[in-house]
Amino acid sequence: MNVTIINIGDELLIGQVVNTNASTMSKLLTEAGMEVRKTMVVGDVYDDIRAAVDEAMHESDAVLVTGGLGPTKDDITKKLLCEYFNSELVENEMALQNVKRIFESRGYELTPVNRAQALVPRCCEVLNNDLGTAPCMWFGGKAVLVSLPGVPFEMEWLMRNRVIPKLQETFGTDIIINKNILVQGIGESFLSDLIEPWELSLPENVKLAYLPVAGLTKLRLTYRSNRNNQCNLNNLTKGLYELAGKYIVGEDCETLDELVHKTLIEKGLTLATAESCTGGNIARLLTAQAGASAYFKGGVVAYSNEVKESVLGVNHSTLETHGAVSEETVREMAEGVRQRLGADLAIATTGIAGPDGGTKEKPVGTVWIAVADKTHTEAKLLQFGANRRQQNIDRSTNQAYAMLIRLICQKD
Amino acid sequence: MNVTIINIGDELLIGQVVNTNASTMSKLLTEAGMEVRKTMVVGDVYDDIRAAVDEAMHESDAVLVTGGLGPTKDDITKKLLCEYFNSELVENEMALQNVKRIFESRGYELTPVNRAQALVPRCCEVLNNDLGTAPCMWFGGKAVLVSLPGVPFEMEWLMRNRVIPKLQETFGTDIIINKNILVQGIGESFLSDLIEPWELSLPENVKLAYLPVAGLTKLRLTYRSNRNNQCNLNNLTKGLYELAGKYIVGEDCETLDELVHKTLIEKGLTLATAESCTGGNIARLLTAQAGASAYFKGGVVAYSNEVKESVLGVNHSTLETHGAVSEETVREMAEGVRQRLGADLAIATTGIAGPDGGTKEKPVGTVWIAVADKTHTEAKLLQFGANRRQQNIDRSTNQAYAMLIRLICQKD
Repeated sequence: MNVTIINIGDELLIGQVVNTNASTMSKLLTEAGMEVRKTMVVGDVYDDIRAAVDEAMHESDAVLVTGGLGPTKDDITKKLLCEYFNSELVENEMALQNVKRIFESRGYELTPVNRAQALVPRCCEVLNNDLGTAPCMWFGGKAVLVSLPGVPFEMEWLMRNRVIPKLQETFGTDIIINKNILVQGIGESFLSDLIEPWELSLPENVKLAYLPVAGLTKLRLTYRSNRNNQCNLNNLTKGLYELAGKYIVGEDCETLDELVHKTLIEKGLTLATAESCTGGNIARLLTAQAGASAYFKGGVVAYSNEVKESVLGVNHSTLETHGAVSEETVREMAEGVRQRLGADLAIATTGIAGPDGGTKEKPVGTVWIAVADKTHTEAKLLQFGANRRQQNIDRSTNQAYAMLIRLICQKD
Repeated sequence: MNVTIINIGDELLIGQVVNTNASTMSKLLTEAGMEVRKTMVVGDVYDDIRAAVDEAMHESDAVLVTGGLGPTKDDITKKLLCEYFNSELVENEMALQNVKRIFESRGYELTPVNRAQALVPRCCEVLNNDLGTAPCMWFGGKAVLVSLPGVPFEMEWLMRNRVIPKLQETFGTDIIINKNILVQGIGESFLSDLIEPWELSLPENVKLAYLPVAGLTKLRLTYRSNRNNQCNLNNLTKGLYELAGKYIVGEDCETLDELVHKTLIEKGLTLATAESCTGGNIARLLTAQAGASAYFKGGVVAYSNEVKESVLGVNHSTLETHGAVSEETVREMAEGVRQRLGADLAIATTGIAGPDGGTKEKPVGTVWIAVADKTHTEAKLLQFGANRRQQNIDRSTNQAYAMLIRLICQKD
């Protein structure tokens, strides 16, 4: 059973909005055992949407379309689907009640523009959108087409609660098992050489992929079968650990912030952060996860030297003698924030993210990272390429998380 | 002149990685006056890539392909392009020198796997990739095909420095002018009703799009012409200001963090942040922009009550009497961080991002935001829907930025 996703919107084709809908939908479908073969983005152009829909309907079992359902003038999907399926627009009672309910709950008056959202092609089945006024429309047939709103949280809710259950009911699904292993401290090509013997020993229906992201390589094993037999991917990783164990920081997580989050909760340890060059990125990735308040005491974004001194307690003489980007400063930042915020563990970063601010001795991309617990502080110097600010921030963030994980696991 | 983008990678189709390459490429091409008609994502599957390439080559002037060029086993693009263009793989001297240079600069030894990166189809022209070992390959002809590495910063550098200049040289381009207007404090459909008379008055070659993102609506005007006449979009916005001026927070920026960044630099004002429920997101979006150190003093992620008291100076009795999520607390957070970090302005947030932590009086999605300068503090209560943690963080962030902009502009 394979799916094509079509995301509609000029905003995607001029690059003003990143297409997170495609990745969210792909992830949910994959987890449900369905195969996304292709995703496409087309603009708010009648002929382009029609051509994409027609192509997808001929090569897929199901086509999921997002966007173009809002009440504004640039939204044309509904009219197009009506014509594609030789149907006519009619007011759908359930959709109308839903629009009325949402307007009442917000205390707004229903305008004609909004009432028009209850118009749908007669031949479709409406899947109720509890979170918004745009209807979700299911067109059955040899290939199924589902039209969803492009608003991310409405789309996601509909996928989880309406579309995927109905797709599973309609098609049944393959067994798919994924396993991630997070590897850090070795480049992709060196890793590839190192683990080649293991890779060659994998069974045929298990696929390995390398996903390098900001200084981390995520290895993904995927098992797929249309028969009813399961596969324990954990048994397959033994050979990987023998070859590359010292570079493996964790398993069964997609990101290092998720691994830190789970590890701290599991071990009952608390954390404080002191960030200069990462500017709050380390804190916000942790706090973006529900339940972070169980371990995250707080953080300080210490962008100026005054804040490093007054809030974190870094010595004035340390800053004067060694500079803000130095081993001495980053150690005092980590120790200071840990003590002042009363946490078991601390992370600190200071560096020159770029593109300006570099010197000959400390070029752009020079970053010091420290992690501390009650008895130890570890510091590490990183040298990134110049002029890649976001890349430098992301790599520093991952390096800090990996150092924290290693500090915690050393103590086990 | 129109372009199709094909991004290759299983990681995109199973939703583990968000396809930022498509948006970065689309943005750069659009700014250069080229039209992206379609983007596609296919997996690391020979037949699927070949079908996508073949389709795109028949309907576009240029096809840009990313991914599948790494040294690892799951990367198959090069072999495929070689066969598609009936060519053979040969070692390219410039590509080899580039691989050697990069390995030398990193102090690594060149392995056979890495040397293989210098193999390219004989019929292509290599565009030198200064930042990485994977070559960028240009295939000329009736339609042009360009193969780029999927690593985001390498791809972006190649697009800016190699691919776009060569596309412009080859095809020439239309004139395209975009203008953004940022509108906040009114829903999309109400805005649509309010500004309809103005929208209907726009010239035919000017297109309006609504881009709602996290409580903000970005209006985008696009002018396109293949003739040599320019269009001043600023003259067209007068009617919009007459109808909806009070909701407009800024122009010519893509996001509110960019608007805050530019405004603070322009006015020479400094900022400090105190974040609870937004967890550092307000700070990291500002510090992700080069030059933030000119105005950003620092921030405190005050996740626990202890930190609110000890670092920000919120009164113990305020927290006891009114709770952490209250107008009184958010005001003291804003005033405290402004004074302690010595800034002209401050932002503070406190709330229940969810999915847990809500009560009957203060349900999940209850957020207080304050902005302060030397003489005034403004606080505002927001009530978001439950159980949408990231959405609540993003909307709170945008609301805080909009309040700060309005506070600054009131004083003008």
